[in-house]
Amino acid sequence: MSENKPVRFGILGCANIARKVSRAIRLSPNATLQAIGSRSIDKASKFASENGFPDSANIYGSYEAVLDDPEVDAVYVPLPTSLHLKWAVLAAEKKKHLLLEKPVALNVSELDKILEACESTGVQYMDATMWMHHPRTAKMKEFLADPERFGKLKSVHSIFSYDAGPDFLKNDIRVKPDLDALGTLGDTGWYCTRAILWAADYELPKTVTALREPEFNEAGVIMSCGASLSWGDGKIATFSCSFLTNLTMDITCGGTKEIHEFTTLSHCFKRMLGNFMQLPSPNSQNLHWGVNQYQASTLS
Amino acid sequence: MSENKPVRFGILGCANIARKVSRAIRLSPNATLQAIGSRSIDKASKFASENGFPDSANIYGSYEAVLDDPEVDAVYVPLPTSLHLKWAVLAAEKKKHLLLEKPVALNVSELDKILEACESTGVQYMDATMWMHHPRTAKMKEFLADPERFGKLKSVHSIFSYDAGPDFLKNDIRVKPDLDALGTLGDTGWYCTRAILWAADYELPKTVTALREPEFNEAGVIMSCGASLSWGDGKIATFSCSFLTNLTMDITCGGTKEIHEFTTLSHCFKRMLGNFMQLPSPNSQNLHWGVNQYQASTLS
Repeated sequence: MSENKPVRFGILGCANIARKVSRAIRLSPNATLQAIGSRSIDKASKFASENGFPDSANIYGSYEAVLDDPEVDAVYVPLPTSLHLKWAVLAAEKKKHLLLEKPVALNVSELDKILEACESTGVQYMDATMWMHHPRTAKMKEFLADPERFGKLKSVHSIFSYDAGPDFLKNDIRVKPDLDALGTLGDTGWYCTRAILWAADYELPKTVTALREPEFNEAGVIMSCGASLSWGDGKIATFSCSFLTNLTMDITCGGTKEIHEFTTLSHCFKRMLGNFMQLPSPNSQNLHWGVNQYQASTLS
Repeated sequence: MSENKPVRFGILGCANIARKVSRAIRLSPNATLQAIGSRSIDKASKFASENGFPDSANIYGSYEAVLDDPEVDAVYVPLPTSLHLKWAVLAAEKKKHLLLEKPVALNVSELDKILEACESTGVQYMDATMWMHHPRTAKMKEFLADPERFGKLKSVHSIFSYDAGPDFLKNDIRVKPDLDALGTLGDTGWYCTRAILWAADYELPKTVTALREPEFNEAGVIMSCGASLSWGDGKIATFSCSFLTNLTMDITCGGTKEIHEFTTLSHCFKRMLGNFMQLPSPNSQNLHWGVNQYQASTLS
């Protein structure tokens, strides 16, 4: 691909999260919405019109057709996790670059197969963990990366939970063992583990120990759980994730010289002793608000 | 004792923490400073004059003399933990009510002996965990105790740490196996476990599992550690405590309907979605500040 040409995205399926990502692709200066495929062409067409796809976008009644579209450079795959292995590997084999929704696979073995497929055909793999790509996340990391100010990372605790409610707990794909079988671990624990690895500069822990007494639904899918991680150098981390606890998305990083608490993974406040930031609306859905608030309160 | 007469306190030893507690006794309308005993009478005398003891206070060159003083109703024991069993039992045998500094004993077996001594002689036992007696702590509990608002307690995380610094890590009694042998677990982890039990209405957990890789000093005293607790009803808790991480004293309580984060155990802010409180000086040493801030920001 020429560096001057935008990446032309095809989307597999009409998941809710694809609405947000479609919007992001549409707003991005270096990407375009090229195609959408659903098992129902009517659904695909409706999705395209509701989400600002250009008239030139290709609408398909199957996922395969998106992968076969020569105008598609990269595919975004927001399908249920249990379908990732099949469609991600197929996308790689069709030489489409891959933006794979989280959780990326049901286990490491599946992910390894996806990565092997991408490597063997020379396409790029990226997971769709949005906050990793937020400019504020890089700013947050600057706080932790300064040994003079923060010192050495000693502890991390992360919690990501929400009270999913009865309808979700009965009907959502994230409570179904044949769809998003990882339950809350894949949905919210994903962010906890990512945030912990992010804080630890992606150094893998030596041990990971599940906390006792996770909660399962009747079908055996995880509704709440947690774990502790240790690196063998005095650094430890814990996390908990849940569909049964009120909305929280926090990571607290303890250094030898400072503590930082980052709240809500899409907004943040920086806490140092003597320096709190007031967040008038931490549950705002405006992804840009956190950056503005951050800049207003800390940078200026 | 008549209800109209103040409790006359004797203090065993001149520990730093005894300065704060002496002040509290002096300011309390229902307690007086009656006696102070140290192994050095000069030290006791100096302590009494520096800490506002009345002229009528009795100054002794031994702990025994305080226990033998008929004008002393109750003793406050801020001695190193390894001395608690001996002096607490002796105090009970001398029929002195007992205010025992935390950590109260090196293990449950020692505490049981102390409690047995108090029960057998009919004196009152109380541990000196100050924040338990702060009016704000009761207010904090009101948030958690409202099932309509908070829902059911699902998760608790507590962290209490401070960067003790080289002099402390070399010389303080809290790093010495023959003095405060529990190290950071007794010093700061004490508050974490108390806060967790406080949040859980003192229901004992079914399991307590140490996190891997605590850190020890050369003498084998704990410098940092953590644990997970579970109750068998889907409620879990984790804590970490350390002499090696920057100052933090937090407890985060996750309910089905709300999350509350209480900061610094001597100050607090109440967080609900859309409602942050700004703390201009969370490391202030003024114990009353938290209450004022709390009342100003939440109650009024």
